[in-house]
Amino acid sequence: MASGGDELKLLGMWASPFAVRVRLALSFKGLRYEYIEEDLSNKSDLLLSSNPVHKKVPVLIHNGKPVCESQIIVEYIDEVFRGKGLSLIPADPYERARARFWAAFMDDKLLASWVQAARGKTVEEKMELLKPTFAAVETLEAAFRECSKGRPFFGGDNVGYLDVMVGALVAWVHAAEARHGLKLFDASRSPLLNAWVDRFSKLDETKALLPDIRKLVEYANMREAQAAAAN
Amino acid sequence: MASGGDELKLLGMWASPFAVRVRLALSFKGLRYEYIEEDLSNKSDLLLSSNPVHKKVPVLIHNGKPVCESQIIVEYIDEVFRGKGLSLIPADPYERARARFWAAFMDDKLLASWVQAARGKTVEEKMELLKPTFAAVETLEAAFRECSKGRPFFGGDNVGYLDVMVGALVAWVHAAEARHGLKLFDASRSPLLNAWVDRFSKLDETKALLPDIRKLVEYANMREAQAAAAN
Repeated sequence: MASGGDELKLLGMWASPFAVRVRLALSFKGLRYEYIEEDLSNKSDLLLSSNPVHKKVPVLIHNGKPVCESQIIVEYIDEVFRGKGLSLIPADPYERARARFWAAFMDDKLLASWVQAARGKTVEEKMELLKPTFAAVETLEAAFRECSKGRPFFGGDNVGYLDVMVGALVAWVHAAEARHGLKLFDASRSPLLNAWVDRFSKLDETKALLPDIRKLVEYANMREAQAAAAN
Repeated sequence: MASGGDELKLLGMWASPFAVRVRLALSFKGLRYEYIEEDLSNKSDLLLSSNPVHKKVPVLIHNGKPVCESQIIVEYIDEVFRGKGLSLIPADPYERARARFWAAFMDDKLLASWVQAARGKTVEEKMELLKPTFAAVETLEAAFRECSKGRPFFGGDNVGYLDVMVGALVAWVHAAEARHGLKLFDASRSPLLNAWVDRFSKLDETKALLPDIRKLVEYANMREAQAAAAN
């Protein structure tokens, strides 16, 4: 499949929020692409040769040339297809720097500590490990206030780069609530993000692309059981 | 001090390669700025209020507005002062994505594992911990081949983004050699990077800005003694 004269292929995995970021970005840009689901326990030669350094999804292959890592791919798509669909990265260099800063914060602090907490063996241990995650959520709430300036999205009136970066996590946020009653974004700790999750979840692009929550819950339970068996 | 109508202040710390990256970028862009040395054991109110999230150097303050994190600052400088001095980020979106990919690799793989190895208590333990660092150096050697395409710098004929990202480490590379006889880039493992270190070290901007190696050795020895005393 192609968009104009461009051939776009995406190597992804349905439960990966990093791959979902790219799918959301492609959708908000209105770009058509061929989606190739990877089996991460038996990676394809195309994945291994396209991302030999990290051997991870997502990889976007644009006219035969691979681009790796979700933040980099989303910036790439937005730069190459400027003027098509939504503009994701802010046009102003200062706001662009702030968007990149918060995207790095999202991955290096919030997401990294959340992944760490998921490795906790008991609910008590998980809750203790979640403390830096909740602190990061409060900081991200301030980031939303700064970026949205009272408007509905990180990107302002329209969805932007950070909406895609954070929004790809929304299904996992719901899955954590279904599994442990854990509300990562709630009305008391992060009222703006809590309202934003509802708003973002109702967009057509989001509804079409976010993984099914029941399937995610099953997947997370299966992964946890595998990890426990391996220890 | 100002550059045109712009007021640029940089909060840095002499031994920080992240701060040196920004100083190199400002120098290759031909921008004047006020440099403010931070005492990291007693951080200034300006640092704490400019980077409340990470409380780290470097912070560039441009007309009163703070920009944090070395990769983001260097991109910001290059975007705002386009056409002034060298262009650091490649103009082509694909090459730009590759430059960002290698910069992330540099920090997340090479530098992260090198910092980890420095914490080894004996020379033997350090050497064991350095294995992923040396593997990352071999990958970075391939990155140099890819980016330079036979020309002298990552940026091609001129210094570019990755020269600044990797080049800020050159004094630390020499300091590690002086302290432990450890050659991170050597003629057998990474001949291209080894020759590039010589080439980059001889540039006027580099000579003016890279920290003094003897001072770095003293600083590293002092930090190691402090860490040992704290354990």
